[in-house]
Amino acid sequence: MSQRLTLALDAMGGDQAPDMVIDGAEMARIRFPLVDFLIFGDEAKLRPLIERSRSLAERTTVFHTSDVVRSEDKPSVALRAGRNSSMRLAIDAVRDGKAAGIVSAGNTGALMAMAKLALRTLPGIDRPAIASFFPTERGESCMLDLGANVECDADNLVQFAILGDMFARAVLGIPKPTIGLLNVGSEEMKGHDEVKRAGAILREGKVPVEFHGFIEGDDITAGTVDVIVTDGFTGNVALKTAEGTARLYTNFIRESFKSSILAKLGYLLSRSALRKVRERTDPRRYNGAVFLGLNGIAVKSHGGTDALGFANAIGVANDMAVHGFLDKVRAELAELAEVGLKGATA
Amino acid sequence: MSQRLTLALDAMGGDQAPDMVIDGAEMARIRFPLVDFLIFGDEAKLRPLIERSRSLAERTTVFHTSDVVRSEDKPSVALRAGRNSSMRLAIDAVRDGKAAGIVSAGNTGALMAMAKLALRTLPGIDRPAIASFFPTERGESCMLDLGANVECDADNLVQFAILGDMFARAVLGIPKPTIGLLNVGSEEMKGHDEVKRAGAILREGKVPVEFHGFIEGDDITAGTVDVIVTDGFTGNVALKTAEGTARLYTNFIRESFKSSILAKLGYLLSRSALRKVRERTDPRRYNGAVFLGLNGIAVKSHGGTDALGFANAIGVANDMAVHGFLDKVRAELAELAEVGLKGATA
Repeated sequence: MSQRLTLALDAMGGDQAPDMVIDGAEMARIRFPLVDFLIFGDEAKLRPLIERSRSLAERTTVFHTSDVVRSEDKPSVALRAGRNSSMRLAIDAVRDGKAAGIVSAGNTGALMAMAKLALRTLPGIDRPAIASFFPTERGESCMLDLGANVECDADNLVQFAILGDMFARAVLGIPKPTIGLLNVGSEEMKGHDEVKRAGAILREGKVPVEFHGFIEGDDITAGTVDVIVTDGFTGNVALKTAEGTARLYTNFIRESFKSSILAKLGYLLSRSALRKVRERTDPRRYNGAVFLGLNGIAVKSHGGTDALGFANAIGVANDMAVHGFLDKVRAELAELAEVGLKGATA
Repeated sequence: MSQRLTLALDAMGGDQAPDMVIDGAEMARIRFPLVDFLIFGDEAKLRPLIERSRSLAERTTVFHTSDVVRSEDKPSVALRAGRNSSMRLAIDAVRDGKAAGIVSAGNTGALMAMAKLALRTLPGIDRPAIASFFPTERGESCMLDLGANVECDADNLVQFAILGDMFARAVLGIPKPTIGLLNVGSEEMKGHDEVKRAGAILREGKVPVEFHGFIEGDDITAGTVDVIVTDGFTGNVALKTAEGTARLYTNFIRESFKSSILAKLGYLLSRSALRKVRERTDPRRYNGAVFLGLNGIAVKSHGGTDALGFANAIGVANDMAVHGFLDKVRAELAELAEVGLKGATA
């Protein structure tokens, strides 16, 4: 028997908040009939939006907050001044066991800082990482870290490999995900010291993941591995470069279809086929980056997304909770600690 | 009056060498009537290929070499054992003033190591960088470093900004190119120490380049700046991620056109328009990465390219030589040294 589940939503984060958040919650309500919501934000603004759907109102508890973390706030400022913000109180609901996870489209740095402080990192994990899925030639892969840690040492990278492995198993359902370490070449001698050292540790075999080896940038979308591990600087640049390149292609193709009457007609005929490409690569479909390595489920939605994108981010939090991701990770990390995780990465 | 120009070609580097190199030289011969070639490689193999075009044979001198740098050779091995290789002797021709530049599709690491040793870096430049052009929403931009230096400090990045500025001015003809430093956000506080320090130096204004500020991965293809400066690790990953994403899109669209009879018909009608997109984004069109910061013109062709791609790499060497790139760079660096380049980057 499936159980009911409660998710906390920060209603005030994101370019189109709070409308987008409430519309996204309404879409998620239909898709996930077992989910209830705790929604944090300006009650006067939220009430009329929520009341538009009686079913949503029935499954929602609103917590009024007047403080908001702004997108330009530094994480340190948000930590100090944002104690009563919608973001912070939504995270606290997870810490206090009132919600199984939190979803926010607000300031990434502030969300990470608050989530780290309130939820703390899992035993054996020094730093949390941001992970997300994206489309590849062979299906879907996940990459981490996408920007939480601009500098990472070999131990961090090995821990990300462990977290990514568990994430892909729990959420993508891949029994033995392959792990690739992003580098500038596939040979062992390639790369800087930390990536070489992480590669050596993972090759040794003490860490129980299926290590493929070093991969290069074009392996990301080729789907060469299920999980791509990298530092937050490189991961962030790679993710955004891929997004930019996708946009460039879409625009070039759109222009070309307008370039002649024949091409316009060709577009009309192939429109529904091209729509499938758009759907397959729709960034909203892959919206919802997960903060891995914390004692709680925290999902960051893209700030510029719409209701559909936000509903998908809620879906990620739902999937993780339903699959018992945290319990599995805790159990695995405890096992690893027994055989000496620190020994493996030291 | 334009003058004749000699370029040295390593005929033995690249997956389809030497055929691809000679066919590329033949294409370049037609495009650049003032260029002569010194071609280094296995004479027995080269002669019959070259003799197929009397015009090419007339403008070519073949230097027989029996040694070849292999794609799997480590740079250190290539340096020691490859003294009589086609690659090395072609570089030496530039060092000895017999050729204005060298083009090779061989082992990148070996080519860089040999070129550094034989040609040496320009005064004021600590390390050479690999630079290349690519298509953007607004035209073309150039990025460096694409993989020569996996770790870079702030001074290296500032020097890359100076080299990239000169390159874009000389070859793209942009009077005052804008320079962006690749980072994980546009705010001054973003990134690791070296990128922050490089940003601070460039913002100060002592280095005479048009500094736009920090840019993110999606700014690369957006064409936000003319020159993207980054370390070789990030640059290499970004370049290959963009290539992979372009391939993913092309494949998705190809598949979608095959998905129904209507879509197939649509493809037939829009084929010539779509061909324009393919031409605009053809990697062969952007083939030819330049080693910037050396006392000589050295161009690296993609190893997997064909004759058209190799001809384009020859075109890059030709453009740089015709525009007097090296003289301009030397003059600018001398000026910078007078006002204290080291002071600016110290």
